[in-house]
Amino acid sequence: MEALVLERKDELALRDIPLEERLGPRDVRIALRTVGVCGSDVHYYTHGAIGPFVVREPMVLGHEAAGDVVEVGSAVTELSSGDRVCMEPGIPDPASRASRLGRYNLDPAVRFWATPPVHGVLRPTVVHPADFTFKLPEHVSYAEGAMVEPLAVGMHAATRIQVQPGDLAVVIGAGPIGMVTVLAALAAGCARVIVSDIHDAKLDLARSLGPVIPVNVRSQKLADVVRQESDDWGADLIFECSGHAAAMAEMFDLVCPGGKVALVGIPLQPFAFDVSKAQVKEARVESIFRYAHVYPRAVAMIASGKIDVKPLITDRFSFKDAIEAFDFAKAMPPASVKVQIDMPS
Amino acid sequence: MEALVLERKDELALRDIPLEERLGPRDVRIALRTVGVCGSDVHYYTHGAIGPFVVREPMVLGHEAAGDVVEVGSAVTELSSGDRVCMEPGIPDPASRASRLGRYNLDPAVRFWATPPVHGVLRPTVVHPADFTFKLPEHVSYAEGAMVEPLAVGMHAATRIQVQPGDLAVVIGAGPIGMVTVLAALAAGCARVIVSDIHDAKLDLARSLGPVIPVNVRSQKLADVVRQESDDWGADLIFECSGHAAAMAEMFDLVCPGGKVALVGIPLQPFAFDVSKAQVKEARVESIFRYAHVYPRAVAMIASGKIDVKPLITDRFSFKDAIEAFDFAKAMPPASVKVQIDMPS
Amino acid sequence: MEALVLERKDELALRDIPLEERLGPRDVRIALRTVGVCGSDVHYYTHGAIGPFVVREPMVLGHEAAGDVVEVGSAVTELSSGDRVCMEPGIPDPASRASRLGRYNLDPAVRFWATPPVHGVLRPTVVHPADFTFKLPEHVSYAEGAMVEPLAVGMHAATRIQVQPGDLAVVIGAGPIGMVTVLAALAAGCARVIVSDIHDAKLDLARSLGPVIPVNVRSQKLADVVRQESDDWGADLIFECSGHAAAMAEMFDLVCPGGKVALVGIPLQPFAFDVSKAQVKEARVESIFRYAHVYPRAVAMIASGKIDVKPLITDRFSFKDAIEAFDFAKAMPPASVKVQIDMPS
Amino acid sequence: MEALVLERKDELALRDIPLEERLGPRDVRIALRTVGVCGSDVHYYTHGAIGPFVVREPMVLGHEAAGDVVEVGSAVTELSSGDRVCMEPGIPDPASRASRLGRYNLDPAVRFWATPPVHGVLRPTVVHPADFTFKLPEHVSYAEGAMVEPLAVGMHAATRIQVQPGDLAVVIGAGPIGMVTVLAALAAGCARVIVSDIHDAKLDLARSLGPVIPVNVRSQKLADVVRQESDDWGADLIFECSGHAAAMAEMFDLVCPGGKVALVGIPLQPFAFDVSKAQVKEARVESIFRYAHVYPRAVAMIASGKIDVKPLITDRFSFKDAIEAFDFAKAMPPASVKVQIDMPS
Repeated sequence: MEALVLERKDELALRDIPLEERLGPRDVRIALRTVGVCGSDVHYYTHGAIGPFVVREPMVLGHEAAGDVVEVGSAVTELSSGDRVCMEPGIPDPASRASRLGRYNLDPAVRFWATPPVHGVLRPTVVHPADFTFKLPEHVSYAEGAMVEPLAVGMHAATRIQVQPGDLAVVIGAGPIGMVTVLAALAAGCARVIVSDIHDAKLDLARSLGPVIPVNVRSQKLADVVRQESDDWGADLIFECSGHAAAMAEMFDLVCPGGKVALVGIPLQPFAFDVSKAQVKEARVESIFRYAHVYPRAVAMIASGKIDVKPLITDRFSFKDAIEAFDFAKAMPPASVKVQIDMPS
Repeated sequence: MEALVLERKDELALRDIPLEERLGPRDVRIALRTVGVCGSDVHYYTHGAIGPFVVREPMVLGHEAAGDVVEVGSAVTELSSGDRVCMEPGIPDPASRASRLGRYNLDPAVRFWATPPVHGVLRPTVVHPADFTFKLPEHVSYAEGAMVEPLAVGMHAATRIQVQPGDLAVVIGAGPIGMVTVLAALAAGCARVIVSDIHDAKLDLARSLGPVIPVNVRSQKLADVVRQESDDWGADLIFECSGHAAAMAEMFDLVCPGGKVALVGIPLQPFAFDVSKAQVKEARVESIFRYAHVYPRAVAMIASGKIDVKPLITDRFSFKDAIEAFDFAKAMPPASVKVQIDMPS
Repeated sequence: MEALVLERKDELALRDIPLEERLGPRDVRIALRTVGVCGSDVHYYTHGAIGPFVVREPMVLGHEAAGDVVEVGSAVTELSSGDRVCMEPGIPDPASRASRLGRYNLDPAVRFWATPPVHGVLRPTVVHPADFTFKLPEHVSYAEGAMVEPLAVGMHAATRIQVQPGDLAVVIGAGPIGMVTVLAALAAGCARVIVSDIHDAKLDLARSLGPVIPVNVRSQKLADVVRQESDDWGADLIFECSGHAAAMAEMFDLVCPGGKVALVGIPLQPFAFDVSKAQVKEARVESIFRYAHVYPRAVAMIASGKIDVKPLITDRFSFKDAIEAFDFAKAMPPASVKVQIDMPS
Repeated sequence: MEALVLERKDELALRDIPLEERLGPRDVRIALRTVGVCGSDVHYYTHGAIGPFVVREPMVLGHEAAGDVVEVGSAVTELSSGDRVCMEPGIPDPASRASRLGRYNLDPAVRFWATPPVHGVLRPTVVHPADFTFKLPEHVSYAEGAMVEPLAVGMHAATRIQVQPGDLAVVIGAGPIGMVTVLAALAAGCARVIVSDIHDAKLDLARSLGPVIPVNVRSQKLADVVRQESDDWGADLIFECSGHAAAMAEMFDLVCPGGKVALVGIPLQPFAFDVSKAQVKEARVESIFRYAHVYPRAVAMIASGKIDVKPLITDRFSFKDAIEAFDFAKAMPPASVKVQIDMPS
């Protein structure tokens, strides 16, 4: 089957690659229709590795995906051929201790698409467990379905931090994860969200998503805006989506007494955590990792209109131009948020 | 000052009543502009009592209110004359054990407007603690301000039940409290809300509030709809807003395993709680009483557009017609939700 | 193999019964050493059914068990022949929605020992999943191991109700479940526990378990004692372990504002829930069903000496006298709490 | 009145100091009987300041205290002359936003004994609000009463981190705060506690407090012990009580997936927080600051025998030797935990 293959760092190919997959009794076979490009896909392209995960063999990229069920295993009753679906890219061991406790995202044995040595889904079809495949209602497009993956990260963060209705949140960083976190925070009960970034184009888009207060930290102090918007009390919630050490060092100046901080962005470096600042406010810090049990909830939010992900899909390419799509995503102009690739039907 | 006085059961008068009020250092004096009519006001009118609270002396009615600050106490810095405000009608003892624990709504010594022997605010002015008086932004009307009181009940229920983003909720009963609970549940993160009632007019209005599935229990079985909308799993959340024993007995058939139930409506009679049904689902039941710390959050939700209470304000009267307003509210046609009275400026 | 077989209501036999069990790769074979008699075992004996579970075929009784591993499946690495173990009697479907969410006790498909049509373990050996088999340290006896099952109920209740250090709890009912709940509540952080019952013999035993205040409701009013011990505030926690409607109706008089109630006992009848009483205190009610993820924690508590279950084991019989043990348990003198049967080694 | 006065850095005096205190209606006057020496008292002595709090005028030291009520204000009904009591040393503004939310420890306006410019209580008498004064039962000594202050820190940490029954905890650092945290963690439901320190004398004392596993990090790797005691899963809870950057950097290697960390020790320097390590485990971090609403709970735990603080009181001095006591505390031999000073009666 023809797939987008990362041969090695800096080298992509659209080529045939043998990917035989047997259909187990609880599996479905899915024809891919839309696949989003994630920052991690681009990072494997440009660096050949993310931390301990190193691309040693040619690997198919792509893990944000929607498609059509084309075959179902013998024990699958909840899905049928022709169902339009989106898929969770990580498959945990259901017998692991973390999975049994209901927190399968913490299972170290999880197999995650486009994370070496597991192939991704920029290819015609894939076999996937029915348990991690979710039906899309008729009026939800494949493009929206492929956005469920990044949206799930934001929704998981908003779930774990336990938003209270009427909260004031700060989202640090208006990249793709910051954007879905803005959507999730608002949908989860925040009255308003303050978003910080250094690009006006991103902040303009963020502002269009709801009651959002954009702050370009090149011209404004984030702490000043928070103080003003909160009558000097601080923000109830901080969602750190930038991974920047300098931004992280400032979090405990922004949060209110008794407030909460979610660490969503994955920083490359440790940051200097000033514990005594956090202590006088008894700030709670939640570390966020992917998501668990969130996909059906994210689909429900899109289906009911509570969350609209369409403004975040800024750029589309067809599969034959997939390499161009990656080069675009590599250069990523500030006004772009999400690049998606339409698969041939 | 001229006020709407409940002389005794079934007898209202618009008349002068001496209500001298001294302005303490942390108080403000407020000129009333809009006052909503609550079911409890009507109940005192028609029954002369609610449970242990009996009207023994003439009492001014009304506790859902917005107005203008006209005078501030010597120690008030956060409010000024001319500020447009809404007010919490219950004033707890700040030194009580419940207040100190942060749960002032549970203080038995709370003094609550229009609850004997405390006068309500269908009158020109009232003196109130600044701590329970909240500024309205310019673009929020007095009518919306007077809706903060009932909305706070719904938001408090949604806060205590800890809505998770993407939840499916059932709201039993589409009266005023059911309606604000629908708004609060959606704003707090529910993807969809199923609402049950016996009046199509109410259900039509509920349906206009967002992704709401109306169920007229005269023609449909609520349990059937819940099963269908939840793929036989049950609803994540049940908000009981009817106070009907028959509806309450059904709650544990509707809720999903691990689900939660909020008791918002105040029933006159005990209901038959089938414990073993709740146990096999380990349902959690939260009992809800008024609200605490919710007013600024409710104002923020209205101000940012996350919640729109305007569709619920179905009927307006001027103060000179206040008795007519109460007789209308007593008869209350099904298409009406909230009656408000505009005070003379 | 020779087993204690409930032939039908009121008829027990010690006889051979063919119970072929194949050892799966993730299973272990266990030789039983001690089996406790539970109220449910006795109820099947005396009534032939518990609610919808009816004994239609001869069924082996017993589900509180400890023993020795005698054979391990090919994929079991964490257990070996000769390990002393206790076993969870309920085996859920790991792929069920409840199991995947981490709440396997709510899986309706659970297969539970000595619940028709599943055989219990008053027999020489049983095959059981390694995932539900837990090692006992050397210094923990089989008798203590067989107490882990009832203890797990109390610990699960104490876990879900979220005891706060220093809480005052009330345990209603000093039967076996009430007793393990006393132990669990104290170990989970309660400073003191008030226990109510009608038998002085039970209350005397309860008093020996720690800082326990016994109340014989034949001679004292429970509400009076709670008021006195709590300076008129009420108890932080109520654990209802009696299943008696009259006791349940009183719960919301005992609990403090903001307090919590755990429904542990399984009543045969609905009780009259006075919602408004619960509401003025915003009482939270947790419905408790068996346990999940508690066994290793219960073993750890016994192993470290934090919980001592030995005083609850009041009566022992050898397997050849198993029928006599059941007749004793049927008559159950007030000073007895737990009857155990020692299996031939 | 004669008091222990810190004249300036390094200079203590036992001398008369004029401290006139008026008794308000809700105050009590207390004759001090026992006062403990805290690390912060010693730090003011040796450094003249803690962070922004600088000793600019002579200041009486001491804030861990118990005594006798000798006079009560006109509105005090819950205390009487002759009552034996302990006192919370911090008095918040009850009208502050933090206090009203029930989190008075986060009120920046709190006045705290022996924190400049507020005098401490190494003196004959003090006037204190009745709301922050707590009765000791007859069988609880003044020495135990004076231990309630440090114990409250440990209990607050155990409360906020939400110990689950059967948890395995690690307490990093066996100083006075580490020791009370061990007691609190065990009383709050931990099955076992691993304690690390560099002094065998401290570890020996810790081991005597219950099911405690001591680890001298000079000879053992803490991570190895945690792995072994948790079957390679990690500890459920980490209580950081050392304030050492190196120890803090290791926390996320010790904690289990889904585990929790409480920052109790107040470090002088930021530490390098490796966020991605915390993320793959979704560790929650709670920042702890003093305590709120804990005193009556700590007294109840001591009174019922659930917590025994007496082993921690290693050294006693009489008031006339108070300067010697401070010099002893300054040198503090490893086998000492808490120094207390008995006041003349």
